[in-house]
Amino acid sequence: MRLATLKNGTPDGQLVVVSPDGTHSADAPVATLQAALEQWSAVAPQLAAISSFPDMINPASLTAPLPRAWQWLDGSAFACHGELMDKVFGIEPLKTERPLMYQGVSDKFYGPNDDVVMADEAFGIDFEGEFGVIVDAVPMGTSAEDCIQHIRLIVQINDWSLRALAGPEMKTGFGWVQAKPPCSMAPFAVTPDELGAQWKNGRACLDLLVDWNGKRFGAANGEPMGHGFHELVAHAARTRNLVAGTVIGSGTVSNENYREIGSSCIAERRGIEIMDQGGAKTEFMRYGDTVRMQGVLADGRAPFGAIDQTVVKP
Amino acid sequence: MRLATLKNGTPDGQLVVVSPDGTHSADAPVATLQAALEQWSAVAPQLAAISSFPDMINPASLTAPLPRAWQWLDGSAFACHGELMDKVFGIEPLKTERPLMYQGVSDKFYGPNDDVVMADEAFGIDFEGEFGVIVDAVPMGTSAEDCIQHIRLIVQINDWSLRALAGPEMKTGFGWVQAKPPCSMAPFAVTPDELGAQWKNGRACLDLLVDWNGKRFGAANGEPMGHGFHELVAHAARTRNLVAGTVIGSGTVSNENYREIGSSCIAERRGIEIMDQGGAKTEFMRYGDTVRMQGVLADGRAPFGAIDQTVVKP
Repeated sequence: MRLATLKNGTPDGQLVVVSPDGTHSADAPVATLQAALEQWSAVAPQLAAISSFPDMINPASLTAPLPRAWQWLDGSAFACHGELMDKVFGIEPLKTERPLMYQGVSDKFYGPNDDVVMADEAFGIDFEGEFGVIVDAVPMGTSAEDCIQHIRLIVQINDWSLRALAGPEMKTGFGWVQAKPPCSMAPFAVTPDELGAQWKNGRACLDLLVDWNGKRFGAANGEPMGHGFHELVAHAARTRNLVAGTVIGSGTVSNENYREIGSSCIAERRGIEIMDQGGAKTEFMRYGDTVRMQGVLADGRAPFGAIDQTVVKP
Repeated sequence: MRLATLKNGTPDGQLVVVSPDGTHSADAPVATLQAALEQWSAVAPQLAAISSFPDMINPASLTAPLPRAWQWLDGSAFACHGELMDKVFGIEPLKTERPLMYQGVSDKFYGPNDDVVMADEAFGIDFEGEFGVIVDAVPMGTSAEDCIQHIRLIVQINDWSLRALAGPEMKTGFGWVQAKPPCSMAPFAVTPDELGAQWKNGRACLDLLVDWNGKRFGAANGEPMGHGFHELVAHAARTRNLVAGTVIGSGTVSNENYREIGSSCIAERRGIEIMDQGGAKTEFMRYGDTVRMQGVLADGRAPFGAIDQTVVKP
C-alpha cells in the first residue's frame, strides 16, 4: 500500500491511497495520515481494501505524505558517513556502539516538489538523502524486537543541512538547531511489504539515486545500516513514549565504496576530497540549484516516487 | 491574563481563563490554547474581556496550559549553570557567545500535579527549574528586537533530565534524546504584563522556589540570563519559521551566589560539591520523591501557580 497527501490549504492536507502504478489516487476514509496512524489497526485494512483509483495525480498537488509530525528523530546509522563527517568537522566525537540520534524540527516537512527556502547561501546548503520510518504509538521501553511491529510506513527523506552552522553547534554538545531547517519527503509513504525482500532486518535495502543539478552524485544502498530501524525506534523509546506518527530517520545513506558509487550529501564528498586531495573543493549548493532523490528497487521501480526540488532565496 | 487548560480526555484539553486570585475559571471562546495562539491577535482581546469566573478550579483537573506543542527548544542561558554542568560532565565544550539550545520532546508536557513516570532510577533522575515563553508565528530571520513582540505567554517549566544518560549523549555532539524525557509545566500561562516590572529585558525576573521532598533546595532569580528570551527566539528562528505555540526555555535558572541561594537542579549542587568537597555526594531522585517549584514575584504572588509532582515507576 502506498499513501500520499494532497495539498488542501490545511497543515495536514488530505490523505489519499495511491494506485499500484503511482499515477492515480482514491480518497481515504480518514482525513489525514496522522489520524490514520492514530488508529492504524482499524484504518489500515480499510485503506488496503481500496481497489479503484479514480483521480489522476498531479505531482504539483502533492505535499509530504506526513506534512507535519509531533516528533522527528534522526539517526546516523551508516558508519562510513560518520567517519567522513568527522573529517569535515575536524572533530573526534565519542565513539559509541549505541545509535546516534538528534531531534529535529517536525512542524513542517516540505513536499517533494516544493521550493526549499534557505536563509543564506553562506550557511553551506547541503542535502542528505535518507530513508525513514513512521511508527504508531510505541510505549516507553519497548524492545527492538517488538519495535519492528510498530513500523507502519517507510518514507524517503532529504534532511536539509547547513554545514557552516553544523560544526559549531555540534561542538556545544547540544546538537543542531540552526543547522537543521525542515526536511523534505518523497511523495509516497509505503507499507513495508511494498519493498518485498528489500525490506530486510529493519533496513530499506534500496539504492538511493541522488542527482545534483541533473548529474548523478550518489547511488548508495540502504542495507549497511549499523543499526536497523527497529533498533533506532527502541533507542528513541527508551525513556519516552513515542506518539503515533513519530518519524525516525536513518541518517545519510552511505556505503564504504563511496569512491565508486558516490555520496548522498555534499559534505561527505568534501570529506573524501580532504582525505584524497588534501582539501575540500566541491562547494555547497547555490540558490537555483536542484536536487533529485529516488530510491529504486532491484527491478527499477521507485516505490517512494522522487524528491525533485530547487533551493531558493527567502 | 492567566490561562489554564482542563483535562478533558483529549490531547489538547480545554482552554480556560483564570480569575485574578487563581481560584476560579471561565471557559474560553476557543477550545484550546494552540488554537488561540494561531489567531492570537483576534482571540486575545476576547480572552481579556472575560470578567466573570463561575467555575472553581480543582487543581487535579488541570493539565499543562499547553499540553503538547509542535516544537520545544530549550536554551541554557544562565552562564553559571553551564559552568557547573561542565564540571559534572567533566567536559570542556566549545565556548561561544551565541545561545546554547537543543530541541526536546514536545508531544507531551506533564500537568503540574501529574505523577512523572521515569524508566529507571539508575538513569540519574533530576529536575531542572526554568522559565519559558510561548510565541505566536515567528518568520525565519526575525530580529531579536522584533521577537519581543512575538512572546505572547510566559510559563514555568520543569525540564526533567536523566543525568547518567546526558553526558554520553552530549559527547556525541548530537544533543540529548534519552536524557530528556517530557517536561512539566506549572498550571498557568501568563501574559507578560502579569509580571509587571519583573518582566524586564526579555527576562522573567522572579525567584524560582524549588523544594525537594519538602525541603528548600533553591531560590534562584530569573534575571541574570546571558541572553533574553527575545534573543533565544531570534536564535531559534534564524533558519526556520517558528509555528504558533512554539515553546522556548531559559535553561536551568542559576545565580552566581549559588552557595547561598541554592540550585534549581541536583546536578548543579553535585558540581558545587565536586569543587568544594572533591566529589559529588548528593544523590539523584528516587521513586516516591517529590519536587515543588513556584516562581514568586516581589510581592509574594505566584503568577504561574506551582508544579508539585511525584516521580513514579513505569
